[in-house]
Amino acid sequence: MLSDCVCSRTVGCFTMTIISLLTDFGLEDAYVGIVKGVILSVNPEATIVDVSHGVAPQDVVRAAYVLETAYEYFPPGTVHVVVVDPGVGSGRGIVAVEMNGQCFLAPDNGVLTAVLSKNSAKRIVSVENDRYFLSPSSSTFHGRDIFAPVAAHISKGLDIGILGPAVDCEKLVRLHLPKPIFTDTHEILGAVISSDRFGNLITNIHFQDIARICSQAGSSDLAIRVGARTIHGVSDTYASVGMGTPLAVFGSTDRLEISINGDSALRILNVGPGAEIRVKRDATAIQID
Amino acid sequence: MLSDCVCSRTVGCFTMTIISLLTDFGLEDAYVGIVKGVILSVNPEATIVDVSHGVAPQDVVRAAYVLETAYEYFPPGTVHVVVVDPGVGSGRGIVAVEMNGQCFLAPDNGVLTAVLSKNSAKRIVSVENDRYFLSPSSSTFHGRDIFAPVAAHISKGLDIGILGPAVDCEKLVRLHLPKPIFTDTHEILGAVISSDRFGNLITNIHFQDIARICSQAGSSDLAIRVGARTIHGVSDTYASVGMGTPLAVFGSTDRLEISINGDSALRILNVGPGAEIRVKRDATAIQID
Amino acid sequence: MLSDCVCSRTVGCFTMTIISLLTDFGLEDAYVGIVKGVILSVNPEATIVDVSHGVAPQDVVRAAYVLETAYEYFPPGTVHVVVVDPGVGSGRGIVAVEMNGQCFLAPDNGVLTAVLSKNSAKRIVSVENDRYFLSPSSSTFHGRDIFAPVAAHISKGLDIGILGPAVDCEKLVRLHLPKPIFTDTHEILGAVISSDRFGNLITNIHFQDIARICSQAGSSDLAIRVGARTIHGVSDTYASVGMGTPLAVFGSTDRLEISINGDSALRILNVGPGAEIRVKRDATAIQID
Repeated sequence: MLSDCVCSRTVGCFTMTIISLLTDFGLEDAYVGIVKGVILSVNPEATIVDVSHGVAPQDVVRAAYVLETAYEYFPPGTVHVVVVDPGVGSGRGIVAVEMNGQCFLAPDNGVLTAVLSKNSAKRIVSVENDRYFLSPSSSTFHGRDIFAPVAAHISKGLDIGILGPAVDCEKLVRLHLPKPIFTDTHEILGAVISSDRFGNLITNIHFQDIARICSQAGSSDLAIRVGARTIHGVSDTYASVGMGTPLAVFGSTDRLEISINGDSALRILNVGPGAEIRVKRDATAIQID
Repeated sequence: MLSDCVCSRTVGCFTMTIISLLTDFGLEDAYVGIVKGVILSVNPEATIVDVSHGVAPQDVVRAAYVLETAYEYFPPGTVHVVVVDPGVGSGRGIVAVEMNGQCFLAPDNGVLTAVLSKNSAKRIVSVENDRYFLSPSSSTFHGRDIFAPVAAHISKGLDIGILGPAVDCEKLVRLHLPKPIFTDTHEILGAVISSDRFGNLITNIHFQDIARICSQAGSSDLAIRVGARTIHGVSDTYASVGMGTPLAVFGSTDRLEISINGDSALRILNVGPGAEIRVKRDATAIQID
Repeated sequence: MLSDCVCSRTVGCFTMTIISLLTDFGLEDAYVGIVKGVILSVNPEATIVDVSHGVAPQDVVRAAYVLETAYEYFPPGTVHVVVVDPGVGSGRGIVAVEMNGQCFLAPDNGVLTAVLSKNSAKRIVSVENDRYFLSPSSSTFHGRDIFAPVAAHISKGLDIGILGPAVDCEKLVRLHLPKPIFTDTHEILGAVISSDRFGNLITNIHFQDIARICSQAGSSDLAIRVGARTIHGVSDTYASVGMGTPLAVFGSTDRLEISINGDSALRILNVGPGAEIRVKRDATAIQID
């Protein structure tokens, strides 16, 4: 019986399902390769895609944000496996969640917080049925012993109801992912939530937030304060400003990003995750250094 | 209708095409995973191969060289996608080029220079038809919004003529990739163009260049000057010299490489990309320190 | 004719075989991508899985350990390709070994030592038949020119007997991989053999070794001496101790590992591969600092 979240696509003459992997395993060790070996042992037809294995060890918050940027770009029926799991082997639960026409398999440690805030979960179960685990299972590598075989079985059409009892969505562990604050009708106080390889600073301020204080988000009467700098207006592209010039831009997930054309804002502005970002409609109210 | 550059192989009962990816996205963020999710959403049968995502951010020259070493080893019909794209979102064009029985999809920023110098392009189009883009498209992540879906459609057999108007090969942006200079009939002045993980120094001097000044390239009357060192003759293998000894060797792309057996020439010789390499037939003419 | 070690699985209407790759190529250069291009040129149906490409350049010992942790988790018929090969292009041999229902293709430099110690090889051949190599072959990149095409042919069912003459298992090069020493009936003297991304220190002491000196391995009368620290007992999970506390645990390969809950033992204990580990049943015999 096909689980509702696995709309496996029939390709030519056989069925194919995507399993995405997001972990903090890195690529130096064999951990990711081992997980893939187990998946393919159970379902040789699985198409496995690495979302990232570069999450800093045990950084559940970062993993939650990375998953948020990625999951929507995978087809219906994808099984998203997230193994950033500081509590491995302890009493923390593992959950399988059907939402967005996909299935999410993750420790119940809040790593699904951002996705759950955008989607209503159709079904949630606690993964407990060890019939689908490797046997014996270790207490230190559930990625190999539980997540991999369970994901592979789901990708073959296993109904997740077989994995364990239903869980109330309200009972899931949630992370506190800070939202921007509207300090008055003209000002937003937000924060840098992450940076990327290019040194772009990604904030928790969305296009819609800016739209609430300013109908023309690109207009130059917006002042964006980051570290010791003030940037005026939101650019359309990195190349809209001169090389080496800081700019604000709506990034690929509609979040406000702080960048430098041809360079790293992270390095040049010396500002990183956690830093305050202040966006104000009336530029004159923010002193420029 | 099958595009001429997509000689998709029929495997068992279905058609399979390879899409190769060469980017500067790194593997820390989810960018590469997202691109793959989009490709598989359009063409679940695509086989995706990473050429590299480790090109330094926006290093178009490096990407041009990396692509040159790799493209020939992929089968006919491969769609090579190159996204090293400092001008993303600006007026720079995106081109699809049929050559070598393969298809190349890249920004028009010169990244195809080395491949174009070795192959005659059968067809070039400017990629403009947004029917094959994600909608809406961002201005900062064309890898996701344009390159991925367009490549996936090409891999499914889309004729590239549908993507936009033909472009004259002469109109494409080219990089200046310096060639070695023959200072006289006995001497070549070249340069280190890159290094690899093993610390091998790869030069712009080819086997054929050496053959012009010396019929026996391996003969010991060749003197190769690099930094403060002179190496005599070209070795057959790394292990032809003692451990820790510098050597010259024709590498896997027939380029002259400077290496150290069991160690890193980059580190030990303290010479990197851009450094001058001087090859002379009469060894006595180069003073040895 | 199908080689005995290739029990290719028939999936839907076609046959699929897994090729695993373990190299020291890193992911910055295109070497791994090129190897995959060659494999897919020969066998477009191959499923290629990266075990790791992060082995330090030419670290054959590390590769032997990594392979040992991974190979069992791949299905029967998998072709494991190991290219950590300081002697590339020299007289060192290349061998194909059938064991564990899988096939191993590697330089004859000892990298298979750990796997050979756990399995009896059913057949070993010296890979010499250049009909299955790329032509011409370089002397510096056998991964591309020999390992990739040979592995792809094996994955298609080539009998390895065609590749070259049989080799006696006793003639293969072996590494010295130190085993723990039982200094008396109550004490084991072992060593750290590697560390992982999380800073866990992996030792050469197995669960079975501990069982020889102590019937209850988790009992608190075990004292484990590492660097300047003594750890009492073996924990079930990382989370069994307080955050920041060192612990010993049987890791995912049943080896004794030294970890710190929520942190890196490698960094905090300042102990790395090669360090001595002393396990004693009577804790009072080891002075605690």
